[in-house]
Amino acid sequence: MELKNFVDKVFSKYRGRKFEIQYWDGTKHTYGTEDTDRFFTITLKTKNALKNIIFRGSIGFGEAYMDGDVEVEGDLADCVSLPAEPYFSLFRPTFREKIKYARMFLKNRNTLKGSKRNIHSHYDLGNDFYKLWLDKNMQYTCAYFEYPEQSLDDAQLNKMEYSCRKLELKEGETVLETGSGWGGFAIYAAKNYGVKVKSYNISHEQVEYAKEWAKRENLENRVEFIEDDYRNAEGVFDKFVSIGMLEHVGVDNYGTFSDIIFSHLKDKSLALIHTITKLFPDPTDPFTAKYIFPGGLIPALSEVIPALEKKLFTIIDIDNLRLHYARTLHFWRENFERNIDKVRKMFDERFIRMWRVYLSGAMTSFSDGPMTLSQILIAKGRLNNVRLNRRAFYDTKYKDPHWNYWTY
Amino acid sequence: MELKNFVDKVFSKYRGRKFEIQYWDGTKHTYGTEDTDRFFTITLKTKNALKNIIFRGSIGFGEAYMDGDVEVEGDLADCVSLPAEPYFSLFRPTFREKIKYARMFLKNRNTLKGSKRNIHSHYDLGNDFYKLWLDKNMQYTCAYFEYPEQSLDDAQLNKMEYSCRKLELKEGETVLETGSGWGGFAIYAAKNYGVKVKSYNISHEQVEYAKEWAKRENLENRVEFIEDDYRNAEGVFDKFVSIGMLEHVGVDNYGTFSDIIFSHLKDKSLALIHTITKLFPDPTDPFTAKYIFPGGLIPALSEVIPALEKKLFTIIDIDNLRLHYARTLHFWRENFERNIDKVRKMFDERFIRMWRVYLSGAMTSFSDGPMTLSQILIAKGRLNNVRLNRRAFYDTKYKDPHWNYWTY
Repeated sequence: MELKNFVDKVFSKYRGRKFEIQYWDGTKHTYGTEDTDRFFTITLKTKNALKNIIFRGSIGFGEAYMDGDVEVEGDLADCVSLPAEPYFSLFRPTFREKIKYARMFLKNRNTLKGSKRNIHSHYDLGNDFYKLWLDKNMQYTCAYFEYPEQSLDDAQLNKMEYSCRKLELKEGETVLETGSGWGGFAIYAAKNYGVKVKSYNISHEQVEYAKEWAKRENLENRVEFIEDDYRNAEGVFDKFVSIGMLEHVGVDNYGTFSDIIFSHLKDKSLALIHTITKLFPDPTDPFTAKYIFPGGLIPALSEVIPALEKKLFTIIDIDNLRLHYARTLHFWRENFERNIDKVRKMFDERFIRMWRVYLSGAMTSFSDGPMTLSQILIAKGRLNNVRLNRRAFYDTKYKDPHWNYWTY
Repeated sequence: MELKNFVDKVFSKYRGRKFEIQYWDGTKHTYGTEDTDRFFTITLKTKNALKNIIFRGSIGFGEAYMDGDVEVEGDLADCVSLPAEPYFSLFRPTFREKIKYARMFLKNRNTLKGSKRNIHSHYDLGNDFYKLWLDKNMQYTCAYFEYPEQSLDDAQLNKMEYSCRKLELKEGETVLETGSGWGGFAIYAAKNYGVKVKSYNISHEQVEYAKEWAKRENLENRVEFIEDDYRNAEGVFDKFVSIGMLEHVGVDNYGTFSDIIFSHLKDKSLALIHTITKLFPDPTDPFTAKYIFPGGLIPALSEVIPALEKKLFTIIDIDNLRLHYARTLHFWRENFERNIDKVRKMFDERFIRMWRVYLSGAMTSFSDGPMTLSQILIAKGRLNNVRLNRRAFYDTKYKDPHWNYWTY
């Protein structure tokens, strides 16, 4: 009973949206003061479930939910957004739990071998599974919405198009990509901008898919997918792009990542890094690290930028797409639930519940929590032939004036 | 004679633009391999001048030039851009010189008193002097050019206009400004966006000028100029802006600067920081620190961003205006030389030569050297009513869609 009292105490000063907790003994209690249409109920079926949440935080909740010891009626996203509330800083892992996590983080380090294992565990879950809830171009990264109601398919096309424009891709140029995903961006850029892309990825299933796709599009001579680590990249290129890979690189390797861009990019050239960033440096949430992205770490800008400065890259533009990612995840969740019967034929209920926590938690971490999405455009060397502003990113009809400096 | 041999050796591998050195003994030598129309001649009138350059770097050159021991025929900017070449890393201050600089930096620290003295020495040189070479709105910061040939007056108007747009200023809002300059931005924002601005500045002459200007514009009830340090700011505001002040804050005070924004800004609100940044953390060049901006320090983004992250600010947008600043300085130099007769009535020849080195060096540090200009747009708290993209910064006719998140 004292655990329930603890919850009462924690939420006695809670002024947010109302929600109800139903306890294992049949009692229930409403917390919060704000009436909204986003009321939800958390059912704690065992005392142990509550214990897990209180003493182990997100992973305690996640596991209890996966095991069916916690049920949520209403939107799971509203429930998992509660930790964004300052009150939940109370529900943090104990010291003993932290030791366990430290061991896990160590085990999952991104050595060449470790990365291979980490990436395999998430991205090789089966292409048919990802097809069920991603857009038709299989973009597993933040989309770019032109208006809030735009479709996910169109918004993912925008993301690829804007990325090409930011990079000022020109026919015949060579592009190094690290992290291919299922090949969507490389194929889009080759098809629409006439560039040649060499793209590295260590997810076997993704590379297989990407190669097939390039073959179907007759782009085999212009898009090369290589199943290898970005650290083994070879060649010198006109442009560099990495969309949604830095999240898997790990803080120890940002220097290496920056070195790789520097060594494989021509002087006075552009590179684009598209990555989730966090408002401040912080280790990965244990639930995510254990069940979703082993070895994953969301960088803070303060962790990435020093690595770029070491190679004297000029930061040309940082574009924050935080709410675009929340919206993207909204669509992924919707698609996932719409296809839940098909997912059930692939995975068990525990996996499905795990995936729900993941997608819901990710969505609210962008809308209410500490996650942002940064598109970082950089230049190697003193690039003096640059755009005067960024209007042409969005408006192709705009006459895009460039400096050609030292002509005055 | 050995000093001349040293120069020969240093430049023997130099492949850049051709230039000539005329030595004190009448001998001359051409260095570089590239024929351009930007040939220049450096005359070293004494052996001591060369010694100063070799052993004391920029300050050695600066002082020798100020004293007339060095003359440059052709463009002084081309001459002072030479240190951007890797070869010049040889010409670095000796250890003994470095000790001297360390003492100077210590003396010029930005305590409340120190800042007052530092700012006074530059910005209180006389409003009539600055009028001779700044634009008609007295903007002593980077302009924003819509096309390379645009006039400085128009480009400075753009800078103010874009800054207002980025901040999404709305009629009746209150704005805290730290670093008023001569009041141009505060007056522009009040006049064109109907906001109320409270603006802090410790340059006595600038504040006097700004107050007069506000009176002439009948804006005294909407623009308040206060002669006080930004650390003494009072009140809570809808928006925050600081244009070209962070360069005087000093690395020890970035935390304080971030705290000041946080404490005086409403939750879920925008702030804009416009500052010169450097490609990497680096102390101020001794010539600049001694003669131009005592106490000044150009931050690297890696030094500013951690301070912003500590207060959980979201970095919404970083816009690099590097070449805009080079172009701005090009105009300042032109205006300065066009009005040189009037300047001569105010200052002696040594000052004029010092100012030439300053403006030329600053210009090339943006076009060829390590300086950039960053407009950093941040939000306090989780601001979920934001623009979907940045097109409206440039295009007022564009229907500017905003999220109003959590409506889905």
